[in-house]
Amino acid sequence: MKKLKMGMVGGGIGAFIGEVHRKAARMDGGVEIAAGAFSRDGAKSLEQGRLLGIEPSRSYRSYGEMIRGELALPAGERIDFVSICTPNDSHHAIAKACMEAGFHVMCEKPVTMDSSEAEDLAAVAKKTKRVFGLMHTYTGYPMVKLARDMVAAGDLGGIRKVVVQYPQGWLYKKEGPDNKQAAWRTDPKRSGRAGCMGDIGVHAANLAEFTTGLKIKEVLADLTTFVKGRRLDDDGNVLFHMEKGAKGVLTASQISPGEENDLHIWVYGEKKAFAWYQENPNYLRVFDQEAPEQVWKRGNGYVAAKSPSAARCTRTPTGHPEAFIEAVANHYRNFCDTIRAFAEKRRPTALELDFPGIADGVRGMKFIEAVCDSSERGGVWTKV
Amino acid sequence: MKKLKMGMVGGGIGAFIGEVHRKAARMDGGVEIAAGAFSRDGAKSLEQGRLLGIEPSRSYRSYGEMIRGELALPAGERIDFVSICTPNDSHHAIAKACMEAGFHVMCEKPVTMDSSEAEDLAAVAKKTKRVFGLMHTYTGYPMVKLARDMVAAGDLGGIRKVVVQYPQGWLYKKEGPDNKQAAWRTDPKRSGRAGCMGDIGVHAANLAEFTTGLKIKEVLADLTTFVKGRRLDDDGNVLFHMEKGAKGVLTASQISPGEENDLHIWVYGEKKAFAWYQENPNYLRVFDQEAPEQVWKRGNGYVAAKSPSAARCTRTPTGHPEAFIEAVANHYRNFCDTIRAFAEKRRPTALELDFPGIADGVRGMKFIEAVCDSSERGGVWTKV
Amino acid sequence: MKKLKMGMVGGGIGAFIGEVHRKAARMDGGVEIAAGAFSRDGAKSLEQGRLLGIEPSRSYRSYGEMIRGELALPAGERIDFVSICTPNDSHHAIAKACMEAGFHVMCEKPVTMDSSEAEDLAAVAKKTKRVFGLMHTYTGYPMVKLARDMVAAGDLGGIRKVVVQYPQGWLYKKEGPDNKQAAWRTDPKRSGRAGCMGDIGVHAANLAEFTTGLKIKEVLADLTTFVKGRRLDDDGNVLFHMEKGAKGVLTASQISPGEENDLHIWVYGEKKAFAWYQENPNYLRVFDQEAPEQVWKRGNGYVAAKSPSAARCTRTPTGHPEAFIEAVANHYRNFCDTIRAFAEKRRPTALELDFPGIADGVRGMKFIEAVCDSSERGGVWTKV
Amino acid sequence: MKKLKMGMVGGGIGAFIGEVHRKAARMDGGVEIAAGAFSRDGAKSLEQGRLLGIEPSRSYRSYGEMIRGELALPAGERIDFVSICTPNDSHHAIAKACMEAGFHVMCEKPVTMDSSEAEDLAAVAKKTKRVFGLMHTYTGYPMVKLARDMVAAGDLGGIRKVVVQYPQGWLYKKEGPDNKQAAWRTDPKRSGRAGCMGDIGVHAANLAEFTTGLKIKEVLADLTTFVKGRRLDDDGNVLFHMEKGAKGVLTASQISPGEENDLHIWVYGEKKAFAWYQENPNYLRVFDQEAPEQVWKRGNGYVAAKSPSAARCTRTPTGHPEAFIEAVANHYRNFCDTIRAFAEKRRPTALELDFPGIADGVRGMKFIEAVCDSSERGGVWTKV
Repeated sequence: MKKLKMGMVGGGIGAFIGEVHRKAARMDGGVEIAAGAFSRDGAKSLEQGRLLGIEPSRSYRSYGEMIRGELALPAGERIDFVSICTPNDSHHAIAKACMEAGFHVMCEKPVTMDSSEAEDLAAVAKKTKRVFGLMHTYTGYPMVKLARDMVAAGDLGGIRKVVVQYPQGWLYKKEGPDNKQAAWRTDPKRSGRAGCMGDIGVHAANLAEFTTGLKIKEVLADLTTFVKGRRLDDDGNVLFHMEKGAKGVLTASQISPGEENDLHIWVYGEKKAFAWYQENPNYLRVFDQEAPEQVWKRGNGYVAAKSPSAARCTRTPTGHPEAFIEAVANHYRNFCDTIRAFAEKRRPTALELDFPGIADGVRGMKFIEAVCDSSERGGVWTKV
Repeated sequence: MKKLKMGMVGGGIGAFIGEVHRKAARMDGGVEIAAGAFSRDGAKSLEQGRLLGIEPSRSYRSYGEMIRGELALPAGERIDFVSICTPNDSHHAIAKACMEAGFHVMCEKPVTMDSSEAEDLAAVAKKTKRVFGLMHTYTGYPMVKLARDMVAAGDLGGIRKVVVQYPQGWLYKKEGPDNKQAAWRTDPKRSGRAGCMGDIGVHAANLAEFTTGLKIKEVLADLTTFVKGRRLDDDGNVLFHMEKGAKGVLTASQISPGEENDLHIWVYGEKKAFAWYQENPNYLRVFDQEAPEQVWKRGNGYVAAKSPSAARCTRTPTGHPEAFIEAVANHYRNFCDTIRAFAEKRRPTALELDFPGIADGVRGMKFIEAVCDSSERGGVWTKV
Repeated sequence: MKKLKMGMVGGGIGAFIGEVHRKAARMDGGVEIAAGAFSRDGAKSLEQGRLLGIEPSRSYRSYGEMIRGELALPAGERIDFVSICTPNDSHHAIAKACMEAGFHVMCEKPVTMDSSEAEDLAAVAKKTKRVFGLMHTYTGYPMVKLARDMVAAGDLGGIRKVVVQYPQGWLYKKEGPDNKQAAWRTDPKRSGRAGCMGDIGVHAANLAEFTTGLKIKEVLADLTTFVKGRRLDDDGNVLFHMEKGAKGVLTASQISPGEENDLHIWVYGEKKAFAWYQENPNYLRVFDQEAPEQVWKRGNGYVAAKSPSAARCTRTPTGHPEAFIEAVANHYRNFCDTIRAFAEKRRPTALELDFPGIADGVRGMKFIEAVCDSSERGGVWTKV
Repeated sequence: MKKLKMGMVGGGIGAFIGEVHRKAARMDGGVEIAAGAFSRDGAKSLEQGRLLGIEPSRSYRSYGEMIRGELALPAGERIDFVSICTPNDSHHAIAKACMEAGFHVMCEKPVTMDSSEAEDLAAVAKKTKRVFGLMHTYTGYPMVKLARDMVAAGDLGGIRKVVVQYPQGWLYKKEGPDNKQAAWRTDPKRSGRAGCMGDIGVHAANLAEFTTGLKIKEVLADLTTFVKGRRLDDDGNVLFHMEKGAKGVLTASQISPGEENDLHIWVYGEKKAFAWYQENPNYLRVFDQEAPEQVWKRGNGYVAAKSPSAARCTRTPTGHPEAFIEAVANHYRNFCDTIRAFAEKRRPTALELDFPGIADGVRGMKFIEAVCDSSERGGVWTKV
C-alpha cells in the first residue's frame, strides 16, 4: 500500500475537527501528514507543524503558499491530496485551487456556502479529474453501510417512511465570545444560510438518502432561532417527500439540553424496518412484524455476508467496539484507495468508491437551500 | 372506601380494550362490575355477563336497556358509572344518554366522531354535573405525571421543543376480514375522519400537551394511506406550534413493521429536558447540559417529593415494575375518588381530579380535525 | 369461571406484599376477597376488612378464628383458599392448619423456616389433597415461561452455564426501628437462618432451576453481613453445580446502593443462550454465535407458537407492557384454575398446573440450608 | 512532541492484536513504526514490513536479529521501544532481551507464562531502568479511569462488593485447525496454565483491582473445560476477597454463545455504586440509593473535573464515541510520554504514569496461579 502524503488546510491548535481528521488519516498507516497551512498566522502554523513533526519548510501560512510550495517539490515528494478543515466560507476557493493545481481533496462538510459553489466544485472535479471526498462522517460507520446494503437488497421491501432525529444541546445558551466552535457556526458570513440545518441537519438528510437509496424530492420546514441574538437557526423540524412515495420527518436541534450527538434514524419498509443510533454505533436493530427483533452486531460473519462494504470497514472483532474516529478513518481509507487506483491506472472498485463526494455536497447544499426557502415562506412544500 | 358499581357498554368476548378496563377497574378493589351491555347480541351479552359473574338480569342487550334496567333498581343497588368501550361512532349517544340518566361516564378515546359531538358532551356533563373520564391511558403512568410536575415546577425552564413519536406496525399489511380490531379502526363510518391520527396520533398530542402544560395552537400535517385500499390514513407526520413559542414535531404510524407501541416523548426546555418511553415506563430520563443525565425511577422518595401525584399512582416498590394495566387503573382510581368526593358532598382534591376528561376529548377532536384539514389542503398551517 | 373466595392471613394496613396479592388476585375477576385475619389486633383487622368491603363478621383476629368462622358457614359461602402473607416464621403453622381444615393455600415465600417444616407441608398437602401455591413471583412472567419452554424444546442445546444476579440496595444502611419490612427480614427468629439469601437468593436459585429444568446439586457459598449489628447475611456469592454438568454463579445482595430489584439471568447452552431482566420484563434476548441476537417480545404470535404457557399468561397486546402485579396474577390464575379443575373433578392441564408449589418450597429451603452450611464452614462444596 | 520509533515483534499478516497495536500507536501521531520482526519466516516479515512502509533492512526474522540490527544503527535512528505482540510463551525472553539491550517495552498480556517469569521481568525492568507497559486495554477507557478516580475520592464510600462478568462465545465449539487465534490460546505450551482465565479472566481481575484500588487477597475458583478435547479451561467462576473486607465474584467464559466481549463491572460501596459496560464504553452509571441514577458521559466538563486522567484520554467531544482502539491508544500515549519524560531527564507526572506495567503483570500471573490452584484442589480459598 503506497503511503499517501496529505497536506492540511486549517486544523490549527485548538481546532476540533482538524485533529480528528489527522488521527483518522494516520490510524491505518496509509497516510503521512506531510504539509499544512494550519493557520493564517505563520508562527502558529509553524508551531502546529512542529508538533506534528512536519518539516518547517512545509508549514505554510496559506493554502496558496502551500500549493506553490508543494508544486515546487519533486513529484514524488509533494503531497497527494489536501484535507480541508476550515470553516465553510473558504471551502470553495481552497478546494478549487487545490484541484486545479492537481491535488485531490478531502473536504469537511457542509461543502460550500451555497449550491452554485458546490456545482462549480463538481465541475472542477470533473474537469481536473481529481478525487473529491466529503466528510459526511456517519456514512462511514459499518452498520450504516450494512443498513444501506440491506435496503438495496430488498430486505425491507419498498421504503415507506423515514424518521431521523439529530438533537444536540451545546448551543442551548448564547455562546460566549470564547467559544470558537460556536462563533463561526452561528455567523452567516462564515457558515452560510443555515445554522443548525447546515451543521447537522444536512448530516441527517444525507443519512436518510444514503441508507434508503432514495432522494429527497421536496421539503417543508419550520426553522427557529430560539436563543435571542443568534443570527442563524438553532433548531428545525422538516417534513419531506422522497422518491417512490417514501415520506419522512427530520428534526435537528442544537438547543436540546443534555443531548450530545444523538443522531438516530428509523427506516420503515413494506416488509421490515431498521433503527440505528450513532452514540452506540456497533449495532443495527432490524424489525419484523412477524418475528423477533434482530440486533446485528459489527464484525460478525453474517454482517460480512450481507455487506462486504461493512466488512471492509471493520478493524476489530465483534464486541471490541469501533466508533467515531474509525468512521472518519473509513472514509479516508476508501478515498485514498481510490486515489491509489487512479495512480495505478485502474478503475476503482465499488468498495473503494464507497465514500461521500461532491455529488453529496451538491445534494446537501440544495437541501439546505430548500429548507431555508420553505421556512422563510412560512412552511410550504419546496422542491430540493 | 365505598365500592362503586360499574356498568360496561361494549367489551364483549374477543374485544381487547374492554377486558383491560375491567382488569384495571377491579385491581384496586374499589369497583365492582355489576352490569353490562356487552354485545348487541343478547345471548352473547348474557354469556359475557355470566363469565364475569354478573347477575343475568343485569346483562343487557343495549345501553338503553341497561339505563332503564338500572334505573328500575333501588338507588343503592344500581350502577354508579358506565364504562364505554365501544367503537368511536357510538360514544356520543351512549355517553349523553348515560349522563342524562344520572350515571357518571368513563369513555374510551377518541371521545367522539368530531369536535361538535365532543363539545356537546362537555355541555351535557356540565349540565348534568356528571363526572366524565376519558381513557388517555398514557397520562396515567406515574412517570408521566412526574414529568408534568417537573415542567410545572420550572425545572426545565420555558419549554422550547417537543418531539413525540408513536410508531406501531400492526396495520403494515391490508387487514384481513377477520381482524376485528382493524376493521372498525379503518372504517371512516365508525372511526371518524382519521385513522392512525385518531387512534394513536391523538394520544401523542395529548401527551405533549399534558406534560408541557401548553396547548397546541396550530398544526401542519402530512397524512398518508400507505396500504392500498385502506380508507383512512395509516401514517402521519405533523409539525406543530404550541403556546409560549414552543415548537414540535409529532409522528404516528401504524405501518411501521416491528414497532409495537413505541410511544416516545422528548421535551426540551431552556434549562433541562426529559425523555420518556412507554414500553419501559418506570423510568424518566432527565437531561442537563452541564451535569450527568439522571434516571428517575418510579417508587422512590425523590419521586414522591417532586410529584405527589406520581406517588399516589404507585402500588409497588422500586424495581417491581408497574405497567399498562396499572396506568389504566390509575385513571379509574382518580375518576372513582372524584365520584366518591361528590357523593360525600366535598370538593375533590387536585390529586383526585388528576385524570383526563371531556376537555381533553374536545382538544383531541380539534387536533384531529386540524390535522386532517391541514393535510387535505396539501400541508398548510391550521389552527387547532 | 367460578369466582373463588379467598381468605387472607396477614396483609394488614401498611404491609407491602399483602396488598400486591390482593390486587393480583382481583385483577382477572376470578377471585373475591371474602375473609381475612389481617392483623393480630382485632380492631386493625376489622378496619382492614372494612376498607376491603368484607363483612365485619369475616374479619378475624387470627387464622385459627378464621378457620373456625369459615367452617361454620355453609359450604357454598365459605372461603375456597387462604392466601398467607405473614412473615416466614408463621407460614408452616398457618398453612398446615388451613389445609387440614380443607382450604387450599397460596403462600408467600420462603415457604417455611427450614426444610423439615417444608417437607412436612408437602406431606400435609399430599395427605389432605389440597392445592398449595408458593409465590415465586418471577416465574409468573410470560417471558420466563418462554425461556423455560425454549430450553425444554432444546433450542439452546444442553445447558452449560448459568449466571444469575439479584442486587438490591434497600438494606445498605442499618435499618431504623420504623422500617417494618426490614425489622422481621433481619430477625433470625422470624426470617429463619438466612437474610438476603432467604429473601431473594432463593428467588434467584428458583429462577435458575425453573428456566433450565435442572436441579442445583451442590453449592459453595460466601455469605456476608456487611452492615454492623445486623444478625443475618445481607449479601452473598454462590458457586453452584447443576444436573447434567451445568455450572453457575449466583450473587444476591441487599446492600448494593441504588439497585432496586435488578434480578437478571443469563443461561448459556451448547447452541444458544438467553438473557432476561426483571425490571424490563417483556423482552427475552436470545443469543446465537452465528446469527444476530433476537429480542423476543411478549404478546406476539411467535411467542405463543413456542410457549402456550406464556401466551396464556398474556393480557395485553405487544408493546402494552405487563409487569410485576400481572406476574403475581398469573400464578393466582393458574392456581385458581387448578382448584377449579379439582372442583370439577377433572385433572388440571399442564398449563393450569404451571405455578410454583410445595416442591419448589422444599427445594428453596434446602438451597438456603446448603448455602448457610457451606458459608459457615468457610466455603466448601455442600450438597443441596 | 518527539516522535518515538517503535519496533514490533509479532503482528504478522493475519494476526489480530498486532494490527490493533499499530493503529493505536499511530493514531495520535507520536509513534513511527520503524522496525519489526513480524514473523519467523523472513519473507513474511519482509512483506509485512513492506506493507507498513518500513525500510527492508529493518524487517527482521527474529527479535534477536532486530536487537542487533537496531543497535548497529546510530542512536538517533534506532527504535526507542519494542511492542511485543506474540503468544504468551515468548514474552519473557523477548522482553528481557529488549530491556537488556536498552529498549523500552510495551507487551501484550498475559505478561508471561508464570509469576516467576513476571517477577524476573520486574527485576530486569528495575535494573535496566526501562519503561515496561502491559496492554491491559480496558483500563485505557476514560470512563474506567473516571470510575477509579471516583472511588479514590471516596464518592462511593468504602467498597463492599464487586461483580465482574466477562463472557465471550467464540470458543463455544471445538476450534478447527484453521483458527489461528484459538490454536495457541488453547495450547498450554503457548498460553500457560490457564485458558479462559489467562486470556480474559485476568482482564476482569485487573479491572476489579484497578477501579477499587484494592488488591484481591484470596480466591476460590471453579474452572471448567466444557468443550471436549480442549486442554485448558474455557470457563470459570471465581469468588474472591479483597483488601479492607471487600468481596466479589468474577465469571469469565469463552463458551457463552452470542456473547462477544461483554465485559461488565459493578462496584458497590457503602454510599454509592457504579456500573460500566465495555461494549458501550462512553458511559458510567452511578447509583445512589437516595437519588436518581446518574449517567456520566465521556467528554463533559463534569468528567474532567472529577478525573483529569479521563479528560487527558479524551479525543472527541461528547456524543462522538470513542472505543477500543482509542483505549489502546491511551495506554500507548501515556507509555510514550513516560519514555519522553525520562528522555527529558524529568520525573513523569502521575497522569503520564497512568498505564499498566509490570506490577500489574505480576499480579495477573499470581491471580491465574491462585485460580488454577484453587480449582485443581476442588475449590478451596487460596491466597493470591
